[in-house]
Amino acid sequence: MTMRKFDIQRPNRDIERAVWAKIDNLNKPLGSLGRLEEIAAQVCLVQQTLSPTLRHPCHLLFGGDHGVEREGVSATPREVTRQQMENFAHGGGGVNVFCRQHGVELAVVDVGVDGNISHVDGVIDRKIACGTRNFLYEAAMTATEMDSAIGVGATLVEDCHARGCDILSIGEMGAANTSASSAWMSLLGGVPIGECVGAGSGLDTNGMERKTDVLRRSIERFKTEMPAPHTEDIIRWFGGFEMVAAVGAMLRAAELRMVVVVDGFIMTACALAATKISPAAQDYMIFAHVGDESGHARLLSLMGAKPLLSLGLRLGEGTGALCALPIIESAVRMVNEMGNFKDAHITKYF
Amino acid sequence: MTMRKFDIQRPNRDIERAVWAKIDNLNKPLGSLGRLEEIAAQVCLVQQTLSPTLRHPCHLLFGGDHGVEREGVSATPREVTRQQMENFAHGGGGVNVFCRQHGVELAVVDVGVDGNISHVDGVIDRKIACGTRNFLYEAAMTATEMDSAIGVGATLVEDCHARGCDILSIGEMGAANTSASSAWMSLLGGVPIGECVGAGSGLDTNGMERKTDVLRRSIERFKTEMPAPHTEDIIRWFGGFEMVAAVGAMLRAAELRMVVVVDGFIMTACALAATKISPAAQDYMIFAHVGDESGHARLLSLMGAKPLLSLGLRLGEGTGALCALPIIESAVRMVNEMGNFKDAHITKYF
Repeated sequence: MTMRKFDIQRPNRDIERAVWAKIDNLNKPLGSLGRLEEIAAQVCLVQQTLSPTLRHPCHLLFGGDHGVEREGVSATPREVTRQQMENFAHGGGGVNVFCRQHGVELAVVDVGVDGNISHVDGVIDRKIACGTRNFLYEAAMTATEMDSAIGVGATLVEDCHARGCDILSIGEMGAANTSASSAWMSLLGGVPIGECVGAGSGLDTNGMERKTDVLRRSIERFKTEMPAPHTEDIIRWFGGFEMVAAVGAMLRAAELRMVVVVDGFIMTACALAATKISPAAQDYMIFAHVGDESGHARLLSLMGAKPLLSLGLRLGEGTGALCALPIIESAVRMVNEMGNFKDAHITKYF
Repeated sequence: MTMRKFDIQRPNRDIERAVWAKIDNLNKPLGSLGRLEEIAAQVCLVQQTLSPTLRHPCHLLFGGDHGVEREGVSATPREVTRQQMENFAHGGGGVNVFCRQHGVELAVVDVGVDGNISHVDGVIDRKIACGTRNFLYEAAMTATEMDSAIGVGATLVEDCHARGCDILSIGEMGAANTSASSAWMSLLGGVPIGECVGAGSGLDTNGMERKTDVLRRSIERFKTEMPAPHTEDIIRWFGGFEMVAAVGAMLRAAELRMVVVVDGFIMTACALAATKISPAAQDYMIFAHVGDESGHARLLSLMGAKPLLSLGLRLGEGTGALCALPIIESAVRMVNEMGNFKDAHITKYF
C-alpha cells in the first residue's frame, strides 16, 4: 500500500514561554480566562507567533454512503445522504446557517454519495464510488480508493490554504457513518465495541442492539481476514469515503500548519485515525465539543482531548465545530487586543 | 421600604406547541441540536413569536467598591476597581474585546467606585457613593441608596430598550464583590456560608479562610440586628451598588420582555436576588456559563439553571455572557434559517 505520506512537524515549543508571559500580563487575574487562554496559547504555538490570526475560515463538508447501511444499522435511510447534500448545496442545512453566521466559506464535497448529484450547483464532484462496500462481508474500499479519498481531502485543503485560510473545520454527511466510526474507535482505540456504539441519528434500543451485533460480527470477520492489521487496514475496511477524505484533510492541514477544528463523534474518530497515522497532527487540533452520541466523551478522553463546548449536539455536518469558532476567535482576540497591566496603569495584584 | 415594583409577567405558554413543532420539523434528527433548540424555544417564548430576533445587543458594566474590602477579603485591592473602570472606558479590557467582536454596545457605569472618574470619557456617572459601608459592622447601604441603585439599573435598561435592544447582558467590576455575592447566596439560597466562598480573583488558602471568617462574623451580626429579614434587607446589608444596579437592570429587562444573559458567580447571585423579588424574572434569563469560582455550579443548580458554557472563566466584567452570545445567535438563526423536511424534499426519518 502506498498511502500518501504527510510530513507533519510538531510546533517548536521555544516560543511557549513568551506566549504565556504575554497572556499572564494581560490585565486580568492570572488564569481567569480559563480555556480561552489555553486555546490562545495553542494557536500561538501552531502559528509560531505572539499575534495569531484566524484568516479565511473554511469548512469542508464531505458526503458519502456506506454499504453497511443495508444491514439496518441507521435510523437515517441511505437516500437522505443525497437529499441532504442537495439541501446543503441550496443553503438550507444547519451547516449553512452557521457558516453564514460566522463568515465561513463552505465546500460541499461528494466523495461517495449513492446517487448522481454532479449536476447540482454548489456540489463539488469528487465521487470515488456510489457508496462503500458492506464491511460486514468485505473491506469497505480498496487501497486505491482509500488513497484517492485521502487525496481528495488533502487537495481541497491545499485549495483553502492557497486562498489564505489558516483555520479549517470539517463536517460529514453519511447515513450509517456512526457505525463506521464506532468500528474505528474500537479497533484503533482498543475499546470494546459495545462501549463505542450509540443511537446515531435516532435508533431505539432494538436498533442499537442490531447495530452492535452487526459491528461485532464485522469485526470478527475482519480479524479473521486480517490477523495482524495495520492502521491503514482498519481505516480501509471500515471507513467511509467521507471519513477517509476527512482524515486526509486533517493530515494535510496539520502539514500546512493550519488550525483544525474537530467536530463530533465521527470527526473525532477521523481525528483518532489521523493521529494514529501521524501523532503530531493532534497539536494542530482544537476539539470543538463533546456531543450527545454515546461514546464521544470516551473517545475524547482516550485522545486526552478537552472539548470546548458541551451543548448536547448530535447533528453532524460539522455544526459543533462551527459553533465553537467564535470562542476560538475570542481567544485569539484576547491575546491580540486586551491591554496589559503596565500599559493600562493597573496595579498587578498577583 | 418602598423599593420600585416591577410588573413581570411570565411569557404566555400557548405558543409553546407551535414553537416546538417548528423546531422539530427543521431538517435534522429530532433533538439533534440539543441546547440550541432549548435556547431557541426560550427566546421564541419570551418574544411570543416563531421568528425571534436579537436586536441591538447591549452590555451594561456596573462598577462599585465594597466597604468589606478593608477586611482583606480580596486578592484585588480597592484601587483596581477605579483603574479597571478607566481601562474599560479606554477599550483595553476583556469586556471591550468581546463587545467589539460581537458588535455589542457597551455602557461603563460608575455606580459606586471609590474615586472620582466622572472626568473620564466613556464612563457614565451614576455614582451613589464612593463604595458601600463595611457589612462586617453595618448595612452596606441605606434603603434610599438601594432604591437609587435599583433605579440606575432600571433606567439604563430603558435607554437600551428605547434604542431597539431586545437582548441584554450585564457585567461588574468591584474588588471584594465575590464576598458580597457569597453572603447573598448563603442567605437568599439557604446554603452554609462555607460552601459559598471561593478564591475570587486569586486568594490562597489562608486568604479564603480569612474571607470565610469575615463573612461568618458578618452574617452573625446581621442575624442579630435583623432577626426576621426580608429579601430586601439581605440585599441591602451585603450588596454592592454595582450588584444592586444589576438586580434592577435584570428586573426591568424582564418587565420589558427582553432576554437577559446572565454571566458568572456575581451576576448569578444578582439573578438569584432578582428572582427572590420576582420569580417570573427567571423566564427571561439565559445562563451563559458556569465559571471557575467555587460555589457557582452550586448556585446555578440551586436555581435550576443550566449554563451554556463551561470554559473555566472567572474574570467577571460579563465576559462569559459575551462569549455565549454567538451561541444564542446560532440558536435564533437555526429556528429562522434552517429549512424543514418538507421544503427541502427530505425523507422524514423519525
